[in-house]
Amino acid sequence: MPEIEFWYDFASTYSYLTAMRIEPLAKAAGVRVAYRPFLLGPIFKAQGLTTSPFVANPVKGRYMARDIGRIAGARGLVFHIPDPFPAHSLAAARIAMVAEAEGWIEPFTRAVFAAEFAAREDIASTEVLDLILSGLGHDPARISAASGTPENKAALRERTEAAAQKGIFGAPAFVTADGELFWGDDRLEQALAWVKR
Amino acid sequence: MPEIEFWYDFASTYSYLTAMRIEPLAKAAGVRVAYRPFLLGPIFKAQGLTTSPFVANPVKGRYMARDIGRIAGARGLVFHIPDPFPAHSLAAARIAMVAEAEGWIEPFTRAVFAAEFAAREDIASTEVLDLILSGLGHDPARISAASGTPENKAALRERTEAAAQKGIFGAPAFVTADGELFWGDDRLEQALAWVKR
Repeated sequence: MPEIEFWYDFASTYSYLTAMRIEPLAKAAGVRVAYRPFLLGPIFKAQGLTTSPFVANPVKGRYMARDIGRIAGARGLVFHIPDPFPAHSLAAARIAMVAEAEGWIEPFTRAVFAAEFAAREDIASTEVLDLILSGLGHDPARISAASGTPENKAALRERTEAAAQKGIFGAPAFVTADGELFWGDDRLEQALAWVKR
Repeated sequence: MPEIEFWYDFASTYSYLTAMRIEPLAKAAGVRVAYRPFLLGPIFKAQGLTTSPFVANPVKGRYMARDIGRIAGARGLVFHIPDPFPAHSLAAARIAMVAEAEGWIEPFTRAVFAAEFAAREDIASTEVLDLILSGLGHDPARISAASGTPENKAALRERTEAAAQKGIFGAPAFVTADGELFWGDDRLEQALAWVKR
């Protein structure tokens, strides 16, 4: 089955939109989704930004909230800007690397995004992450240990370096097997069509 | 007939995509297009940028060229990045203010965008602008005089200040009669649907 890479940071608002719809769209297109969690922070830093572009440019930040509010409304999705914004996504991203290796990243990804943007939970909180893990049938203590190993931390750093090498500068991003890059939830349909050409 | 404002800078690559398709889409939706040329330079300067975001961030600039290339290809449109990039759009924008007042801004806008992004002409060149004006049946000498008056220059400055007041931070942008703002060629359909609600 052809594959598409879905690159995202849990702090990314537009990645939430994608996470909540990519599975049915990819399934309908006969495409498998390869989840690629990474960290936007180092990517933005290389662009000279010390925070989210939506914080650095408040006019753009206000527009983003309205834009996503309209789109989420049309899709029947709840959407709130989390507090703090952007959320600290490091802990969730490290767990996602474990989830990817163990084969449960798809439901974990959706659960984290829903907790953050629909249920207004703080995804930097150990309590919140533990509840998500328990809900998915995983032992929080075991996952916490696995996500905190030097190897797992290094894996996330390498993943983020790989994102930069692929030309990724924001999230969500989609990369095809032949190296074609698409940026933004509004390019998901184009990316799937590219894979199916 | 309901109306939509189309805000654009002639140097804006994504505004080219919109300029070449907004009339048939608006017509099909029963919406009139109000052309609103303005200058992105002062808007970007307020964001701390001294040039186009696509020049300030070359990784994003390369992606933009590829993204528009894909979309233009799918629409049967020729697209080249102009040289220099971004183009100097001040002279064309001043003429556009005259064209707006005199009622021929629609064909002028398309002619300038096509000269810049399809025919690779330098739209800062008086020769190129004069050829466009002659082709549309206007006297270049008369238009040059009208576009260079202090009143016309002030009108363009006020237009750009109005853009900032509406929350516009990039182009193309669409503003509805009830003040709803949409940003990007990929939001044109949403903006037209909003007007028709």
